[in-house]
This record gives sequence, structure tokens and C-alpha cells, in this order.
Amino acid sequence: MTLQIADLNELIETIDGLLARKDLVALTEQLTPLTTSDIVDVLERLNLRERAIIHRLLSKDRALEVFEMLPPALQSDLLTGLQDADVSTLFAELDPDDRLWLLDEVPAVLAARLLRGLPEKERLLTAGLLGYKQGSVGRRMTPEFVTTHIGMTAAESIDRVRARLKDAETVYTIPVLDDSRHVAGVVSLRDLLGEDPDALVETFMQPVYTAEATDEAEKVARMCTDLRLLALPIVDSESRLLGMLTIDDAVRILEHEESEDAARQGGSEPLNRPYLSTPVVTLVRSRVVWLLVLAVGATLTVQVLSAFEATLAEVTVLALFVPLLIGTGGNTGNQAATTVTRSLALGDVRPRDILLVLSRELRTGALLGMLLGLIGFGIAGIVFSPEIGLVIGLTLLAICTVAAAVGGAMPLVARAIHVDPAVFSNPFITTFVDATGLIIYFVIAHAILHL
Amino acid sequence: MTLQIADLNELIETIDGLLARKDLVALTEQLTPLTTSDIVDVLERLNLRERAIIHRLLSKDRALEVFEMLPPALQSDLLTGLQDADVSTLFAELDPDDRLWLLDEVPAVLAARLLRGLPEKERLLTAGLLGYKQGSVGRRMTPEFVTTHIGMTAAESIDRVRARLKDAETVYTIPVLDDSRHVAGVVSLRDLLGEDPDALVETFMQPVYTAEATDEAEKVARMCTDLRLLALPIVDSESRLLGMLTIDDAVRILEHEESEDAARQGGSEPLNRPYLSTPVVTLVRSRVVWLLVLAVGATLTVQVLSAFEATLAEVTVLALFVPLLIGTGGNTGNQAATTVTRSLALGDVRPRDILLVLSRELRTGALLGMLLGLIGFGIAGIVFSPEIGLVIGLTLLAICTVAAAVGGAMPLVARAIHVDPAVFSNPFITTFVDATGLIIYFVIAHAILHL
Repeated sequence: MTLQIADLNELIETIDGLLARKDLVALTEQLTPLTTSDIVDVLERLNLRERAIIHRLLSKDRALEVFEMLPPALQSDLLTGLQDADVSTLFAELDPDDRLWLLDEVPAVLAARLLRGLPEKERLLTAGLLGYKQGSVGRRMTPEFVTTHIGMTAAESIDRVRARLKDAETVYTIPVLDDSRHVAGVVSLRDLLGEDPDALVETFMQPVYTAEATDEAEKVARMCTDLRLLALPIVDSESRLLGMLTIDDAVRILEHEESEDAARQGGSEPLNRPYLSTPVVTLVRSRVVWLLVLAVGATLTVQVLSAFEATLAEVTVLALFVPLLIGTGGNTGNQAATTVTRSLALGDVRPRDILLVLSRELRTGALLGMLLGLIGFGIAGIVFSPEIGLVIGLTLLAICTVAAAVGGAMPLVARAIHVDPAVFSNPFITTFVDATGLIIYFVIAHAILHL
Repeated sequence: MTLQIADLNELIETIDGLLARKDLVALTEQLTPLTTSDIVDVLERLNLRERAIIHRLLSKDRALEVFEMLPPALQSDLLTGLQDADVSTLFAELDPDDRLWLLDEVPAVLAARLLRGLPEKERLLTAGLLGYKQGSVGRRMTPEFVTTHIGMTAAESIDRVRARLKDAETVYTIPVLDDSRHVAGVVSLRDLLGEDPDALVETFMQPVYTAEATDEAEKVARMCTDLRLLALPIVDSESRLLGMLTIDDAVRILEHEESEDAARQGGSEPLNRPYLSTPVVTLVRSRVVWLLVLAVGATLTVQVLSAFEATLAEVTVLALFVPLLIGTGGNTGNQAATTVTRSLALGDVRPRDILLVLSRELRTGALLGMLLGLIGFGIAGIVFSPEIGLVIGLTLLAICTVAAAVGGAMPLVARAIHVDPAVFSNPFITTFVDATGLIIYFVIAHAILHL
């Protein structure tokens, strides 16, 4: 049987209608033929109250499946509305690494309650992961895996896999341990099936990439996807195996980081929940701090212009170009910052490359500035006067060069002082470039127009 | 043996030095202990000529491994410098789906040459994939997979897997076919190992998600990662199996799209190659078109201000706030656009949600505008005059509301008319909001100051 993604909007309309009429029987009927994925899509577009209603209508198994697939923020919402017993059941059914995603989202009181409600063994597994620092891969690895030993045969290894089929999260990538539980190599299930059953693991195992539990989760996730691994062994400082980072968790980490970067480069805090399920108040809160910070920065421009108010009164035509000039500077800085921030994220540049980056961006900015400056000189020179044209042209050249250099360098500086590069990026750079650009503009104007 | 990522900067310095001295023997020595991943990292930071030199120093097997891991743009570079025989070898060694990534990058003449150089069987496989439209998942799927049949047993299925171990790209997710080659379900290798060897596949297969070969690659890739599948069967319009989209290719597609979105939101064309390997001329070319388009748009602001030049001459203090006001409008629009564009990419909103989005953004913008407007009114009122304060306050309120609404709506409009939402986003919105904001500003100023 193949599953199709249902037409979501029709579905939502129908469900909205039934919710309004409080027709629980019809709602249950609507939900029955849907796939888990469809139900998750629906829930992501409802508000808190409606979500709880729908979830309560699902069968126990289905409710569990759906719960596992929800984003942590929505899992947290649901839990706050349930009885202790149900909360404990849902939480215990999650895989240990999925529990940690949820624990990061819930209020501290609920987190404590969730942990207390776990059976002993599960609590130890989960608490073990919690011991690692926020943002480290130790909090994202799974402690449920299967291993083999250098002295075992291919057939014995397959038996070990069979024994762990029910509870290991990953069985396709199998780390090979030596006598001191150090990771000595890796075999894949594919390898095991293809080998002579009596072949010793030691003879056909592959060299293995590993990462330490204290390493940054984002870096390790990127490594996992770059190397196209299905799972990556996580070890302690002495190469003893602690857990595995599976590719689906690596993808999840990267998606989380992309969303964070995208939000911050746009000048807001990440939502961490689907847009349509986010209350307006939360949207405002994710943006207001940034907007205030930027507005405060922008008062710099008021002060700069205030210092040159006399000039503006004398040569009012200069005011006409202010948005164009600082807008172009902002865009140029934006371009550089976006490119370098993305390259940082992909691991293509590092903070130590700052001189290389500056060199390229200065040249790029200068070339762009020369081109725009020529056009600006031409047009402003004809429409207004050659002197004005010269002021505009030179300012564009200077602004583009400075903006590109600042835009390219800021993300690297940010990374070097352990601040999120996307935070430093576009909003800050635009503000800095605005103020600097205005000063450059008026200095050039004074020089050319002999003011 | 565990592999460590070498200290890259030291390595690059050493290699740079040896390249300058043309010491090929020492270079070969440097390269020998490195992992394939390290070599790829090094190559990504060299220029075209140096890259070719290093690649030629590698052993045949190593050269192949490294080639497979390079980004397509760099693969294309290398090929242009090689003999036909070597080119054909490298190309034939790639997996069919990897060949398509490369074919998308190389000039048409080289593409034709590459295809001609393939052995018959490989050429048919590759040409089959090329038949699908650009951007569809048909061009990204692998045609090399293993299947089983509803009437087979678990043991027979495992034998089929064993037979295809060498050439199937994916063996862990096994589609189950019926008599007419329709996809009837799926089993995982994990399932097969755990079942009674004589159990019929039909009895334990799972329902399977599929996608059609003509579906958008990005959508299918997102589906694959959302559902945490290792591989997703790709079918034709009658559910007959054509290929599989593996998770590593899904991740690659998404990474490509993220880079594209990130670049366009920052106002430039995507580089599709590592930053430090990109010549300055290419950097300029990826940004100049955008910059020109934006500059042309910004001349709108010159015209608006020109229309109000008399007002500015009379009340010069109005000029002081221009960057602050349009900057705040730009940031607000930016925030909304970034949020909605990201939500579109994740599938959390669709173009049909435009009224919902507008409703939220109007409210969000109004709340932010009220807050900023109050602060602006307060400060400008004290420093300048209550009337000026009122102008600034009301303008901020109006600008934020309009900017948020436009910023939120534009990406949806873009998606509805099949344009990349990130293209419409920040740069365009900022320009539109700038011009509109200025008009609002002067209209309010005229009204309040009785001009």
C-alpha cells in the first residue's frame, strides 16, 4: 500500500469546521485514514487548544507515533495539558536522544517531572546524555547501538545485530571495539553480509571517523553529512565508545542551525516552532529586541546628519541621495556578510582566513563600487551637475569598498569571539555602514563642493 | 584505526610552500598519510592550477575517491585539464546520480563528451536520469537498488540483497513489488534479519511513502528528511518503481537549496563552489546584477525626495531622520520576509495561507510600530519639538505595519508565481519599503506641521 500526502488545505478546512461544531465523532472519522505525517501537518497549523483536542482523539498507538514526530515545542505544549500517567508514557516511549530535544524546550519544573517519571534504566540513559554541555554532540547522540569485536567473525557479528534489532537505534553502522573498548574500526551491515561467515572482523573492517562527545554538535553533524555516513561513533577523550550520532539526528541538528542562522541574519530570534502555530505575541517578542537594538544604532545616523545639518540646509540636493547611497552600502555589506556567513557554516572558511577574506572583499567591493560609481556619476552628473555627479560617484566607490570589507570580516570576528556570526551579520553591518557611509559622503561633498 | 581531521591551516601553509618551490616529491609525501576528506578540504582552498597539480600526484584509487567527494564545480574544473581517457575513467566511476550533479555544472560540449565516453550500460543508466526535467527528483534518484517481491520469503529477500551488494547504492531500504512491478510496500534490512526466514514478505512489509519522478527535488528531499527515511522509492505516475532517493542525496539537495536561499536573501547569486576557491571576478559577477537592480530601484527614493525637496529646504530637520526611518522599515520588512521564507522552505506555510500571514504580520508590525513609535515620539519630542516627535512616532508606526505586511506577503506571492521566494525577499522588499516609507513620512509631516 502506498501512502499519499492528502490535500492539506481541504483537510484543515474540514477539521476547522468540525472543531467549531465540536463534532468529536466526525473528527475521529476524519483522522482515521490519515497518515501520521498528515496528522502532524494538521497539528502544526492549529492553535494550542485545538491541538490538544485532536491529539486526545487518537488511539494510544497513533498518539504515540504522532507525538514522536512533532517538533519539541509542540510536544511541550501537549504535555502541559495531560495527566501525569500519560505524560510519563509518552516521554518513556521516546528514544533517549529525542527526549533531550524535548527537555531543551520544556520549563525546568516539567523537565524534572518528566525525568522522575521514567523507569530506572531509561532515566540513567537519559541522565547520562544530560551530563554533556548544551550544544555538544554528547547531548544528541544515541546510547542505543550495537558493536562487535575485532576477534569476532562476520557470522558472530550478524548474530549480535540480530540480538539488538529491537532496541538499538542504529544497526547498519557497527563500530568495532578492541579489548579495552576503544573504537578500532567500523563495519557496515552490508559488509557483514558480503563476507565469508568465518572471516575475522579485524581483517575486513574499515578505518573509522569519530568525534568526541564534547565536540560542537553542529560541527559533528556537518562532518556526518559531508562524509555521507549513516552514523558516526562518538567517543570520549581516550577513544572509548559512548554513543552514535545517526544521520537523521545530524540532519535535524543542521536544520535547527539553518533556521537559527536564517532568523538571525534577518534580524530576529528563531521561532523554533512552525510559523502558523506561533502566537502573534511570540512573533513580536522574537523581533522587538533586535528592532530596538538596531533603532538605537540608527540614531547614530541622526547624530551624523545633525552634525552636517548646515550643509544640508545649504545644499539641499545632497539629501536626495542619502537613501540611495546608504541603501547601496547596506546591500553590498549584506551580500558579503551573507556569503561569508554561509561559507563559515559549511566549513569553507575559518576565522584565521580573515586576511584572505578581507583581500577578496576589498577587491570585490572596489570593483562593484567603480561600476556603480561610474553609473552614478553619469546619471547624477547629467540630471544635476558634474560636481554632484563626482560626489555621488566617489561616495559609491568608497561606500561599496568599505561595506564589502566590513561585511566580509564581521562574521569571522564574531566566530572568533564565540558569538553567532549570523547575529553580527546583516543588521549590525548595515547600521555600521550607514553611519560610516554618511560621514564619507559629507566629507567627500565638502571636499568637492568646497563647502 | 581512527582518523583525525588534521590541522588544516598548518597543512595548507606547508603545501603552499611546497607548491611554490615546485617540490613534487615532498608534496606527494605530504599527501600520503592524509585522509580523503583532508585532501578534499585542501583542494577546496587552492586555485585551479594548484588543484590540478595536487590531483595529478595522487594514486589512481585515491584520485578517484577524492574526485567523488569534490563539489561538482571543482570536479568540472579538474576534468577540463585532463586527457580524454582519464576523464572517461573518472566519470564512469561516479555513481549515476552523482554524474548528474556534475553534468549540471560542466559546459555542454564537455557534457556531451563525458556521456559519449561512458560504457554502454552506464550511458543508458545516466541518459535515463537525464530525461527528467531540471529540478525534478528524477534527476537525483539512483537507478541502482535492490527490490523484493510480495511472494518471496525473508530468507530469499536476504539472498537478493547479497546478490546486489556490490552494485546497489542502497540496500537497507528494500521496496516490495507486486506482479506488475508496482510498489506494494517496503521492508528494511533490519526487518528481514529479525523475521522468521520462511515468513512471506507480504505478511510483514510496511506501508511505504513514495514520490513521483516528476515531483520537485527539494520537496521530496524535505519529505525524506522529515520522515527520517534512509531512502525513498521514486515511482512513475502508475506507481511503478523507477529509482530511490537516498538520504545523503536528500541532504545534498537541501544543502544546495539552503545555500541558494541564503545567497539570494542576501542579494546575490549562489556561488556553488567553496568561497576561497572562487575567483574575485566570479564574486563580482554573482553580485553585480543584484546591486544594479537594487540601485535602480533605489533611484525611486531619489525621485520621492526630489518631489519633496522644497519641504526639506524649509524644514531641514526632517532630513535627519530619513536613514533611521527607512532603516527601521527595512529591518522590519526583513524580519518578516526572512521568517516567512524559511517557513515556506520547511513547508510550514503555503501560498494559500497569504491572508493568515497578512493578518499576523499586520498585527505584529503594528505592535512593534507602536512600541518604537512611542519611544521615537518621546526622544524626538524632547530633543527637537513635540510636533517633530509626533511626526516621527506616527511614521514609525505606519512604516512598521506596512513593512511587516509587505515583508510577510512577498515570499508567498513569489512562490505563487513560481519565482524563488528568496529572490523577492529582503533586497526587493527593502527598496519598496524605502520608497513607500518616505512618501508616508512626508505626507504625515505635511499634515502635522501644516506645510
